Amino acid sequence: MKTLYKGMDVVSALQFSRSDVELLIQVAEDLRRAVERGERLDIARGRVMFTAFFEPSTRTRLSFQFAMVKLGGSVVDLGPEEVSSMAKGETPEDTLRTVDSYGPDLVVVRHREPGFAKKAAEICKAPVINAGDGYNEHPTQALLDVYTIWRVFGRVDGVKVGMMGDLRYGRTISSLSYTLSNFRDVEIYFISPKELSPREEVLKVLDQRRVKYELYEKPDDVMEKLDVLYVTRLQKERMKPEDYERLKGSYIITYDYLKKFSRIPIILHPLPRVWELTTDVDVLPQAMYFEQAKNGLYTRMALIKLILGL
Amino acid sequence: MKTLYKGMDVVSALQFSRSDVELLIQVAEDLRRAVERGERLDIARGRVMFTAFFEPSTRTRLSFQFAMVKLGGSVVDLGPEEVSSMAKGETPEDTLRTVDSYGPDLVVVRHREPGFAKKAAEICKAPVINAGDGYNEHPTQALLDVYTIWRVFGRVDGVKVGMMGDLRYGRTISSLSYTLSNFRDVEIYFISPKELSPREEVLKVLDQRRVKYELYEKPDDVMEKLDVLYVTRLQKERMKPEDYERLKGSYIITYDYLKKFSRIPIILHPLPRVWELTTDVDVLPQAMYFEQAKNGLYTRMALIKLILGL
Amino acid sequence: MKTLYKGMDVVSALQFSRSDVELLIQVAEDLRRAVERGERLDIARGRVMFTAFFEPSTRTRLSFQFAMVKLGGSVVDLGPEEVSSMAKGETPEDTLRTVDSYGPDLVVVRHREPGFAKKAAEICKAPVINAGDGYNEHPTQALLDVYTIWRVFGRVDGVKVGMMGDLRYGRTISSLSYTLSNFRDVEIYFISPKELSPREEVLKVLDQRRVKYELYEKPDDVMEKLDVLYVTRLQKERMKPEDYERLKGSYIITYDYLKKFSRIPIILHPLPRVWELTTDVDVLPQAMYFEQAKNGLYTRMALIKLILGL
Repeated sequence: MKTLYKGMDVVSALQFSRSDVELLIQVAEDLRRAVERGERLDIARGRVMFTAFFEPSTRTRLSFQFAMVKLGGSVVDLGPEEVSSMAKGETPEDTLRTVDSYGPDLVVVRHREPGFAKKAAEICKAPVINAGDGYNEHPTQALLDVYTIWRVFGRVDGVKVGMMGDLRYGRTISSLSYTLSNFRDVEIYFISPKELSPREEVLKVLDQRRVKYELYEKPDDVMEKLDVLYVTRLQKERMKPEDYERLKGSYIITYDYLKKFSRIPIILHPLPRVWELTTDVDVLPQAMYFEQAKNGLYTRMALIKLILGL
Repeated sequence: MKTLYKGMDVVSALQFSRSDVELLIQVAEDLRRAVERGERLDIARGRVMFTAFFEPSTRTRLSFQFAMVKLGGSVVDLGPEEVSSMAKGETPEDTLRTVDSYGPDLVVVRHREPGFAKKAAEICKAPVINAGDGYNEHPTQALLDVYTIWRVFGRVDGVKVGMMGDLRYGRTISSLSYTLSNFRDVEIYFISPKELSPREEVLKVLDQRRVKYELYEKPDDVMEKLDVLYVTRLQKERMKPEDYERLKGSYIITYDYLKKFSRIPIILHPLPRVWELTTDVDVLPQAMYFEQAKNGLYTRMALIKLILGL
Repeated sequence: MKTLYKGMDVVSALQFSRSDVELLIQVAEDLRRAVERGERLDIARGRVMFTAFFEPSTRTRLSFQFAMVKLGGSVVDLGPEEVSSMAKGETPEDTLRTVDSYGPDLVVVRHREPGFAKKAAEICKAPVINAGDGYNEHPTQALLDVYTIWRVFGRVDGVKVGMMGDLRYGRTISSLSYTLSNFRDVEIYFISPKELSPREEVLKVLDQRRVKYELYEKPDDVMEKLDVLYVTRLQKERMKPEDYERLKGSYIITYDYLKKFSRIPIILHPLPRVWELTTDVDVLPQAMYFEQAKNGLYTRMALIKLILGL
């Protein structure tokens, strides 16, 4: 069933079917080849994307902006919250409703409130893409994650993915789990302190879709089974200090740590990293996180192309 | 007398004659039709607008940026004051003089200092548009306000406009009054606490131009006479606490409040709103403030087109 | 020897040979004439410049952005540090590596850390231009300074340049000295408190290249010899309070001060100025600092054109 269509809102990774993801991968690959050949695309000429990041972002904001500009389109950015009318006390709802009336062809929105993207999609006539709504979802991140897996392994079916860190409040975890659930024989290994294990709603979807998953507290026990280790930040502020100190060591991926294993999975990370993934890992051929970030450009170009019907 | 010409500075609404306003409305309507037909305009290709907002803005800044981009032009933005050389102690005059030398085709400027736009126009070779100079003026807001009135009533002559809130320090009040004063038989009802009634200079212009106006302290007494109620924020920081608490209730427009009247005028608001206009009013057909904001896009496209001589 | 080529990084003014500087001046002049004729250039269509200012900037950032847009290209800006992932603790190295993977055609970078531009050039596949790295260098400023001197005197050979202020930590001083050292019979007069005299590494280059220079503590003694007085800010925070108060008066250039001399050199300043160059000087024909800033546009257009091979 194909659900990806011109003018659609992208609020949740649950909206994507397997064939949607496959279409996106194919369009991303086509665009990648065009860009690498040095073609200057111009298909979005005259189209305007509005980027509204009510929460800080580098990677996602800039990759959307590069994606649009590389398609030949234009970008108008909300700017940092402080300079906008938020400073005068306006709600983000009023801001979006107003800017939507200026006729953007596409609105990309990030906000710290879970569910905000859905609300934005209801407010805006323009199609809305969720670029992260609190701990809830980050569907375009999941698309680029799966695209990266596909590029490495040539398939997504059957991959064994370990997700490590703060699985409860990490919005990439839910979206990636949902997206992977479209594929056959995927196995997910959730690795986190008990209090940061995935939210019930995420596990429920995996149960319904009969995705095999297991919960672990440490990566050691599962490392050699994995094709992919997806590292995210362990968030100190959400844990008891004594637990944090006890567990911290288990969630730092270093070169020396990885070298202990007979088989090292590819390492992904949504970035930005802080201390949980040390820079000495960068030299390993399995370190794919910068390649992963780069894949975000093509994924987002593909999504924009499909949503704008170009 | 036509005073709107290629290369002109727009510093004050007093510069506009009736025929200027009528020309702007006509050009705005033409551009609106083109945009609504899905035409991708390209007449400003290669032109650069510089937006310098030394004071926070969402609506005005973004609507100018959308207006320019939708005409096919480009925008360079000063960015928030903190990242600019202001942080090193540079005066805005030096900043403008420098950037003007980079050859923008148009400069849009906002600053908290009354009279700053006039100063900017003297400094810059490029035409300057005043996007708000302290409590003084906001002429493009007045143009979109009058355009909105024209679209609702099919005329501006003879309209009865109530302006409510902080009329002393609200820069949209002076500019709107000046712009309305070009039309025949307009009646203005100023509704505010005594200490926030319009500045002498504004009333003087209305006297000279023989515009009928009256001063009220509460909206109740005049509501049913009005075609338009123009709501602005009552500014707590400019009033005695006891006056504020006493008067506050009279300056909050809610659904229930409006429903008491046998005839409800259209409701305009320059936005952003804080508490003086509640969101339950949004459902009323008379709530025109988002339409008004949208009209800002077409008004500004028209103004840019005329000033750039496109 | 020509060292300016397509795809090159511009990290230090030491990279430029005399023929490089002459080529840049010639291309800048050609572009200037085109712009002044009202030509709308389009040679950078489809190219994207990424501007990453990790330190505040108005002039340099905006002149790069205007330069790119006036060549027909597009700009993506990092935005203020606070809104970017720096807020989450990401290193600028990770940020650059990521954004470089989005395929900018050119990266312009400023950072408070001396040597950062070199590091950025190693990280990025795209050519990198140093827009200021701490107290170290600011090579494009030097190019526009020398272009300004050339436009005034018709030559650079033989000019007598006084550089005044904080010569130790002013990054324009080192880059300008290096660039001038390519020309014949240039004389440099460094005017500063002893503790703010030029860094050893700068004087060493001048010695090696046999450039004549002298060190002074006050401008009075040398003023009438100069063709150019290059004023920079005396930085209070780097001096003992008693020295600062004693010396301050000697480093403020005012109209009255200049009028004491029988011969006034042209006055340059990298801007922004604070108190060291008063606005009453602006009326003098020798006040060339706004012209100098304007020359930055053409210099940067020329550099972009040459680096992108347009």
